[in-house]
Amino acid sequence: MEERQISKAVIKRLPRYYRYLGEMLNNGVERISSGELSTKMQVTASQIRQDLNNFGGFGQQGYGYNVKFLYDEIGKILGVDKKHPMIIIGGGNFGHALANYDFEKNGFITKAIFDVRPSLVGTDVRGIPVLMMDELEDFVAREHIEIAVLTLPKDRVAETADRLVRCGIKALWNFAHLDLKVPDDVVVENVHLVDSLMQLSYRISSYENEHKKEEV
Amino acid sequence: MEERQISKAVIKRLPRYYRYLGEMLNNGVERISSGELSTKMQVTASQIRQDLNNFGGFGQQGYGYNVKFLYDEIGKILGVDKKHPMIIIGGGNFGHALANYDFEKNGFITKAIFDVRPSLVGTDVRGIPVLMMDELEDFVAREHIEIAVLTLPKDRVAETADRLVRCGIKALWNFAHLDLKVPDDVVVENVHLVDSLMQLSYRISSYENEHKKEEV
Repeated sequence: MEERQISKAVIKRLPRYYRYLGEMLNNGVERISSGELSTKMQVTASQIRQDLNNFGGFGQQGYGYNVKFLYDEIGKILGVDKKHPMIIIGGGNFGHALANYDFEKNGFITKAIFDVRPSLVGTDVRGIPVLMMDELEDFVAREHIEIAVLTLPKDRVAETADRLVRCGIKALWNFAHLDLKVPDDVVVENVHLVDSLMQLSYRISSYENEHKKEEV
Repeated sequence: MEERQISKAVIKRLPRYYRYLGEMLNNGVERISSGELSTKMQVTASQIRQDLNNFGGFGQQGYGYNVKFLYDEIGKILGVDKKHPMIIIGGGNFGHALANYDFEKNGFITKAIFDVRPSLVGTDVRGIPVLMMDELEDFVAREHIEIAVLTLPKDRVAETADRLVRCGIKALWNFAHLDLKVPDDVVVENVHLVDSLMQLSYRISSYENEHKKEEV
């Protein structure tokens, strides 16, 4: 497949395509037109064609898309056709909740949860062991851990991220409410929950403001 | 203030400006140039000027920005100068984790957690009571609840969202891995964790592919 520079906006839409196609596959749908996909996803058909053309198209004029093929190809692009060994740093509520999530069906395999509290030694979540931070380096090397999930207190995140980078971690999934500084070969994806809530309140306010103007 | 159509990309950056300005305020910084703000935030100075111009500027040529003023104004735009009463639907791990988060310092006040499990009656998280779903309608009306956080199983989300909309909820913060269909006057903000992980794995794969090409 020819490789081009793909915009961030397209990449953001791919997981959603992948999710919808997965649901169709589960429902036994074999073929879909960009029109039908468009209706389901509430994205214009031309947007869908344009997005998928970034990756060589996959569609045949008049025949629509082969759902299984498209699903598999998008899966490859997203890298979810491979297994991604993962650890969670922080065994608090949030770490627990994430360990309980079934990310493994998309290839993200949580191998351990790390914490500093000795009271957690020997405990586990769904069979995923809670280990102490002094075992981190050995474990990451032995289990070829690729992704570290950061769910620890804000004031300990930067130092922990540095330590993970030195261990050879390739990717950080950061739930702490700050931006991390890492070398160029480490990727960071932030889930800033407060930012998301603020966007919600922005949209509540701006809806109310528009509505007020209409009433005047 | 003059109102214009503000792009989604700008709105997405505002919480980050707000966060950085809040940290500066805490550190006693009173005034900052767009150049300094740019260095701190790793956004170009012209981007910052352009973004803030959307809201009337706030800056004075050669004098930089008044941190407190800018912080407060962005807070108003984001709607975080007001209190937003909130409920969490789903008292599982994730609901628990969110109830423990200190969203209230930004005006998001969690008033209750709703669940269907009778074993949770009478329990609480940090004093936030767990209530049963049959109390939902009365509670939402009495407490003027604005935002509902959806952390319940995927197969019960659509029906619960409909019920919340009928109660008069204005905004849904959705953690379930599906897209909700709601009337135009209800805003939805999705936190699709799997989508975020897939973007991480996409970036790992595309980094590796580039790197491989360099090695050839």
